[in-house]
Amino acid sequence: MAEFPFRIDATDRDARTGVLSTPRGDIATPAFMPVGTAGTVKAMFLDDVRSTGTDIILGNTYHLMLRPSAERVRRLGGLHKFMGWTHPILTDSGGFQVFSLSELRKMKEEGVEFRSHIDGSMHFLSPERSIEIQSDLMGSDIAMQLDECVANPCEHGPAAAAMRLSARWGERSKAYFGVRESQALFGIVQGSTYADLRKESAERVVETGFDGYAIGGLAVGEGHAAMCDAISLTAPLLPRQRPRYLMGVGKPIDILEAVARGVDMFDCVLPTRSGRHGQAWTWDGPINLKNAKFAEDDTPIDPQSTCPASRDYAKAYLNHLFKAGEYLGPMLLSWHNIAFFQAMMAAMRSAIAEGRFEAWRAGMRQRWAQTSENQLA
Amino acid sequence: MAEFPFRIDATDRDARTGVLSTPRGDIATPAFMPVGTAGTVKAMFLDDVRSTGTDIILGNTYHLMLRPSAERVRRLGGLHKFMGWTHPILTDSGGFQVFSLSELRKMKEEGVEFRSHIDGSMHFLSPERSIEIQSDLMGSDIAMQLDECVANPCEHGPAAAAMRLSARWGERSKAYFGVRESQALFGIVQGSTYADLRKESAERVVETGFDGYAIGGLAVGEGHAAMCDAISLTAPLLPRQRPRYLMGVGKPIDILEAVARGVDMFDCVLPTRSGRHGQAWTWDGPINLKNAKFAEDDTPIDPQSTCPASRDYAKAYLNHLFKAGEYLGPMLLSWHNIAFFQAMMAAMRSAIAEGRFEAWRAGMRQRWAQTSENQLA
Repeated sequence: MAEFPFRIDATDRDARTGVLSTPRGDIATPAFMPVGTAGTVKAMFLDDVRSTGTDIILGNTYHLMLRPSAERVRRLGGLHKFMGWTHPILTDSGGFQVFSLSELRKMKEEGVEFRSHIDGSMHFLSPERSIEIQSDLMGSDIAMQLDECVANPCEHGPAAAAMRLSARWGERSKAYFGVRESQALFGIVQGSTYADLRKESAERVVETGFDGYAIGGLAVGEGHAAMCDAISLTAPLLPRQRPRYLMGVGKPIDILEAVARGVDMFDCVLPTRSGRHGQAWTWDGPINLKNAKFAEDDTPIDPQSTCPASRDYAKAYLNHLFKAGEYLGPMLLSWHNIAFFQAMMAAMRSAIAEGRFEAWRAGMRQRWAQTSENQLA
Repeated sequence: MAEFPFRIDATDRDARTGVLSTPRGDIATPAFMPVGTAGTVKAMFLDDVRSTGTDIILGNTYHLMLRPSAERVRRLGGLHKFMGWTHPILTDSGGFQVFSLSELRKMKEEGVEFRSHIDGSMHFLSPERSIEIQSDLMGSDIAMQLDECVANPCEHGPAAAAMRLSARWGERSKAYFGVRESQALFGIVQGSTYADLRKESAERVVETGFDGYAIGGLAVGEGHAAMCDAISLTAPLLPRQRPRYLMGVGKPIDILEAVARGVDMFDCVLPTRSGRHGQAWTWDGPINLKNAKFAEDDTPIDPQSTCPASRDYAKAYLNHLFKAGEYLGPMLLSWHNIAFFQAMMAAMRSAIAEGRFEAWRAGMRQRWAQTSENQLA
């Protein structure tokens, strides 16, 4: 492994802020990673993604291995060159998407065989093949071990089996990955919402030893409160001096509560997906620009923002663009939402650095609870 | 009318280059106007449209009067403010789109009644209402008279009737428009492919007197050669000292031949529409980025271009984006195509200014004839 330096600059109770250093650049934490599923952060230019304060993006192994294929990405110079992003990229293992294909996959100890949702062709992912794709072929800066993620609620037996398979796959991932100068590998804690399984999983993953530790298997049906509980019991079991990454999360309130519990990294399709559907995230909660009440609202989403998409376009214009089905609507709201998420992360980092995170958190909780009933859904 | 100053700086046979000055900025001619149908140049940020060398864009009255409505555009500060474009805007009259609704419209001397393709609601356009929408409500810099455009081929009788109705509507448009300090009105010559009708139309439109003169009713089924013939016989009948605008044209070869015949302004959805469908226009003709031969082509469309979309993305990446149905594909190719069209206009302006347009034209004709069989289709 690479042991990318991780410097914690300040803490506020369990929350912490710092910098994870990689050969392709520093990542200020807590960090939000926009998702570039198929080699593009949907509906955005990468210069604009970068301008919002994005230090690292996420690429999906499942999508890229099917199209254009990991070998083709390799021949075209790796994922950074392919998509034109010179900063760090974290790739997932492909496991999460494969396990979502419930009808189309066949699990074995060796790995998982699955059918492409695009053309029906058969593919195989093992812990070793996943690292080969992520690190050797695509050139990911941070690779994730292959794991098995179960949907919540899940009975104890299947949750335990999936967690233990994930632990064995973690060992194989590390053995295959070996020691690399400029690439890192993260392990993943599973165990659904069961305290005993989370504990066993964390112990095994830490014993295996990784550059960073992810909390997987959350935001998959358990709800906000159960997610918070699972983070509360898992995060303290992970090495304080290494980055902690909560996979696939989430809404602003989820991120806020996870940061309060000591999580350093996040990824989620929410800002770009919401943006494509007309929803803008704001300091006062989400608003839907398709709503008729915005049809003659000549104010921008956020006049104080440094993001042109947030500052320079009237809500009435955005309302029109979504009603007319124009590309520019998703382009602007994806940009706005990524900018909002990054502004929120920056605000959290400042609050932690200045020892006022708990007050900031309480203020935001109150504000979001009042203004957006669906925030906590 | 406003009599926007039009200065012709150089000519080369019938081709001319100059500047049309408007209160919102100068327009270098020959000029290409990207089309912003519904208040947005599809899949583009206007800063990027501007950066390609675009001096003026076109807005579609038909689309905007239906959604968000001319009155709403007015309440939101006019079309420039609504869409965020501070440079000149030319609006069409709405007539062309209405006449395309063959089943949904009812013609009268007074104007045309039609049913919205969006919600089935009834609307009415007269010469006066069209100017009210374009100039009074939306604040267009250059408005077009309402006309009746027939599809080619068209029999002499109906072509004559439509042309004469257009001429009467031109008179009413001018009477309603009156004298305005900072807005202009262009008349339109019709007459299908008939020399006698084009001549009669040109004489009547010139007698009415406008700030500029459009050649309408072409690129509607007559083919390249017949279009060139119609331009050849119409352009010389229009005042030399005022701008000539060929509406809805066109392919690079069409624009080239029209410039050679003395046309100064063009608009067409081709670059953005082609871009959304994976087609890139180049100095060697159009290429289709969806073609499998580009799947591993790591060269950009044009390494010499100043446009990032043309210069910084490999064809293989564009091929992937279109195969994956990603927004970024249309975003990049729309940008590239507008940049290419504007580079082509700039090259024509330079060639005319330097007295080498005929040689340049011959070279391009040969190049395009060799490399793209569908250019002349």
